[in-house]
Amino acid sequence: LDYQHVQVPFEITLWIMLASLAKIGFHLYNKLPSVVPESCLLIFVGLIMGGIIYGLNDRSPPVMDSDIFFLYLLPPIVLDAGYFMPSRPFFENIGTILLYAVVGTIWNVFGIGFSLYGICQVRAFRLQDVSLLHNLLFGSLIAAVDPVAVLAVFEEIHVNEKLHILVFGESLLNDAVTVVLYKLFRSFCEMPTIKSVDVFAGVGKFFVVGLGGVLVGLSFGFTAAFTTRFTKDIRVIEPLFVFLYSYLSYLTAEMFHLSGIVAIIACAMGMKRYVEANISLKSHTTVKYFMKMWSSVSDTLIFIFLGVSTIGENHEWNWPYICFTVIFCLVWRALGVLVLTFFVNRFHVNTITSKDQFIIAYGGLRGAICFSLVFLLPEFHRKKLFIAATTVVILFTVFVQGMTIRPLVDLLAVKRKRESAPTVGEQIHIRFLDHLLAGIEDISGHWGQYYWKDKLEYFNSKYLQKILLREYDQPKSSIVLLYEKLERKHAIELAEAGQLGHGPAHPSLLNDRTVRTDQKLEDTQNPDVLDNMQEILARNLYRIRRTGPAYNRHTLPGESEPSEHAKEILILRHKSL
Amino acid sequence: LDYQHVQVPFEITLWIMLASLAKIGFHLYNKLPSVVPESCLLIFVGLIMGGIIYGLNDRSPPVMDSDIFFLYLLPPIVLDAGYFMPSRPFFENIGTILLYAVVGTIWNVFGIGFSLYGICQVRAFRLQDVSLLHNLLFGSLIAAVDPVAVLAVFEEIHVNEKLHILVFGESLLNDAVTVVLYKLFRSFCEMPTIKSVDVFAGVGKFFVVGLGGVLVGLSFGFTAAFTTRFTKDIRVIEPLFVFLYSYLSYLTAEMFHLSGIVAIIACAMGMKRYVEANISLKSHTTVKYFMKMWSSVSDTLIFIFLGVSTIGENHEWNWPYICFTVIFCLVWRALGVLVLTFFVNRFHVNTITSKDQFIIAYGGLRGAICFSLVFLLPEFHRKKLFIAATTVVILFTVFVQGMTIRPLVDLLAVKRKRESAPTVGEQIHIRFLDHLLAGIEDISGHWGQYYWKDKLEYFNSKYLQKILLREYDQPKSSIVLLYEKLERKHAIELAEAGQLGHGPAHPSLLNDRTVRTDQKLEDTQNPDVLDNMQEILARNLYRIRRTGPAYNRHTLPGESEPSEHAKEILILRHKSL
Repeated sequence: LDYQHVQVPFEITLWIMLASLAKIGFHLYNKLPSVVPESCLLIFVGLIMGGIIYGLNDRSPPVMDSDIFFLYLLPPIVLDAGYFMPSRPFFENIGTILLYAVVGTIWNVFGIGFSLYGICQVRAFRLQDVSLLHNLLFGSLIAAVDPVAVLAVFEEIHVNEKLHILVFGESLLNDAVTVVLYKLFRSFCEMPTIKSVDVFAGVGKFFVVGLGGVLVGLSFGFTAAFTTRFTKDIRVIEPLFVFLYSYLSYLTAEMFHLSGIVAIIACAMGMKRYVEANISLKSHTTVKYFMKMWSSVSDTLIFIFLGVSTIGENHEWNWPYICFTVIFCLVWRALGVLVLTFFVNRFHVNTITSKDQFIIAYGGLRGAICFSLVFLLPEFHRKKLFIAATTVVILFTVFVQGMTIRPLVDLLAVKRKRESAPTVGEQIHIRFLDHLLAGIEDISGHWGQYYWKDKLEYFNSKYLQKILLREYDQPKSSIVLLYEKLERKHAIELAEAGQLGHGPAHPSLLNDRTVRTDQKLEDTQNPDVLDNMQEILARNLYRIRRTGPAYNRHTLPGESEPSEHAKEILILRHKSL
Repeated sequence: LDYQHVQVPFEITLWIMLASLAKIGFHLYNKLPSVVPESCLLIFVGLIMGGIIYGLNDRSPPVMDSDIFFLYLLPPIVLDAGYFMPSRPFFENIGTILLYAVVGTIWNVFGIGFSLYGICQVRAFRLQDVSLLHNLLFGSLIAAVDPVAVLAVFEEIHVNEKLHILVFGESLLNDAVTVVLYKLFRSFCEMPTIKSVDVFAGVGKFFVVGLGGVLVGLSFGFTAAFTTRFTKDIRVIEPLFVFLYSYLSYLTAEMFHLSGIVAIIACAMGMKRYVEANISLKSHTTVKYFMKMWSSVSDTLIFIFLGVSTIGENHEWNWPYICFTVIFCLVWRALGVLVLTFFVNRFHVNTITSKDQFIIAYGGLRGAICFSLVFLLPEFHRKKLFIAATTVVILFTVFVQGMTIRPLVDLLAVKRKRESAPTVGEQIHIRFLDHLLAGIEDISGHWGQYYWKDKLEYFNSKYLQKILLREYDQPKSSIVLLYEKLERKHAIELAEAGQLGHGPAHPSLLNDRTVRTDQKLEDTQNPDVLDNMQEILARNLYRIRRTGPAYNRHTLPGESEPSEHAKEILILRHKSL
């Protein structure tokens, strides 16, 4: 037995396997996930695992390594979030989102930091040795809303799109602020004296970190789109580029101390539409599927590790500090949302209702980012207290807030997501109104969002598309494209339901659909199967069918085949109607 | 700048990026890959890269780490090979393949080892210090045909299926023999005296290593199939299980010193048919696509690293030893193939022609496995000579044999792969003959391959399918399944070609196909597009279309939607015909 040799990949594979099996386990009991969010269940599994490891080894189980978290687990989730981000609501509310993410987070950091410092001054609590700077540092890591936790809960409660994008967008974009403040306070902690220059430099850094992330992301995104122009002959490695470039954008941003999360989101949103147009349909299915799979596994691992890391002896318990941390997190967030929304509502026709405000404040869940940041703190004598407080805040928000938010949404009758998407007619109207508003803004000299959107669209079709799209010489109207996409989906669904082939042969099909399902069940009986087969053979044996070559590294079976053949068969069938 | 922090993932990503870009580069010039095999081009890129690194740093570039090769680069390639292995020709020729893989490899190892020892006795060559055991050890690593190199060349020359599977199957299954002999001789080198017991134990190990690998692989494969029974509610992680279980089978086999390659192939072949039936169509596309992508990247990286590792100062040049190694590799393989085929042909009606024998002997390419094994050798004073000889053999086989095999196949007019696959009629006949032969074998009391195949099929449908398949209660005839699969493919192709929607509206479609392509070009003109759109809208606006929810971690857009809607639309269209 040579375990040493395969240890690293073996243990990684086993952890992923455990995570996947846990997911399957929850879904076998349908009732469980509808009451308790999956994130809670996963943390619970992690707690049990941690307890077992602790019991067997008699020492603390290994905590989640911050490097592993930031370098390997976080990027897939953020990439998935950025790639599938609904861009219209995001850009329509970008101002509000930025206000919450930047001003709101700063408000929370300083609010929590200063008020905890106040608590530390109470002599009875024995916390006088925690300085203001340490409290602010703690505030900077505990204030940030966590995208992973928010996603895990909000995707299950189906609130309206605007509310969803406000909380989710904030959780993604506050990364820039968190990175800056956390690093700023940490460097202040190590400095002997703080000059006012340093403070101003810190403020300047906000813009560098945020905008730098956007720039890095966009440049990698456009490079990715440009690269996929040339992959026509080797479809198989197309999906790879999507992952490689987005990961590189994240790593590059991290390397230059910019916001990796912002970079990967910019990269994903920037490349999406061009990559989608360039790569093959199968490649795109693979990209989407793999992104979902990867982010789902990362997410599961994060929550399990969160549970495992909670068990152990790296906590220092101090009732007042921990309780007040939870209270201040709730209070300052609620206050911040109230004040900021007051200003937002003054400048918008479509206001944020008080119910929505409550959900925004209540949905400020903390998660693995805080947890990783607190372990990255430099060693000092109260670090274990901070770890304990962070753990409690995370568990409180994920368990208490996460489990009660769904009943609250029901109770308050918060506006839900509209189930039916816009019809083709509505989509045309929306587009028409966009053009109209852009015109009005242009005439009135007001450079609003429609004006800029129109300019961007013009720039895109005039320059970007020519460079980034492979088949630019045959532009298609977007409605025709949408129609083709829907058509393709229907064709697949029909073929899967067995309609395309068997359908026309049953005269009763068009009149009565209940009969059809009965017939389907009967199909498995012997005589019917024979009939079917005879019919199929009679229809198809008129010419030799081709299938793909036996084995080839670079092509999938049946991929290289000319479709001429298939068309012919269907045309024949249409004729027979 | 904090490069240290992101170094590992950053450099890995960059290497993969380089490999993918190199692949794109070759395919931009269509003429190049048709003359020179891709593997040669990649080694060439690697040599250039190595030269640059050597020039800049003035020291040997890093060699390919054997652990990285065996743990991370080899498994995807073997998994891909096993999963897409055409099982019928493989099992039909399993006896011949095993003979070549086991007896042939042993023949080569001892032939090369002893004759090189003879060369070492010539005083003029100054090689007397290389012992017989060291020569045999060297023989054991240089004798094995490499699956990666064989695949890279044979998939481009399209020889007939039997010839392909003989060479390819041998290259995969000889791993068990190589592992045993290599480890045996290496342990003999470290032993003071060798007892005859050790030799017998070595012979016994063949069976343990090979059959153990098969057992480990099959058990993981069936577990994988069983697991996918329960993934109906979380389709997104289905592809993960295919990868996780096959990788675990490889690692487990390696851990117990069994043949990992044999294990992963058994796992892939065992799970394939059950997994395919259990998982969704999209998951299966993802599995296939990702497997191809991964193996393609691994393969590219291996050849590039092979080139990079060649540059440097870890070679000891000795003309006679190196030249005779190349000659003996060629001669002993040719002799082995001749002798073994003589026996094979005596017991088979369908004999292996002398042309085929030449290609089998000539197609014995060496590759990265030899290279990694030679670096894993224990340190002794002639290791650098072995490294040099191995490098030369690999470069000779990949460049000289790899580049000349295609012209030779043309010149000898070796039977090519039949381009058209069997028709439905032929398939029915093949199946009929299988049953007939199984019956004849049963009556005559001869337990041949058809008898066992029939028994296995019975066992499969009686027990295995009930345990491993999700929807066993509705068994479908395999012809109906095949038909559904073809139908689905056609539907997709048709939809992609825009036939399904636009087709029926053009009356000329059924008569003249050349007109259609002209019309397509005209479609991009303005008035036609408008017509199209009007038509589309008139046809589809009769009811509100639904699209998927805005963002969800676990489902892809449009996946959860009921297909009832889509059917209705198509039925309406059929009516309008």
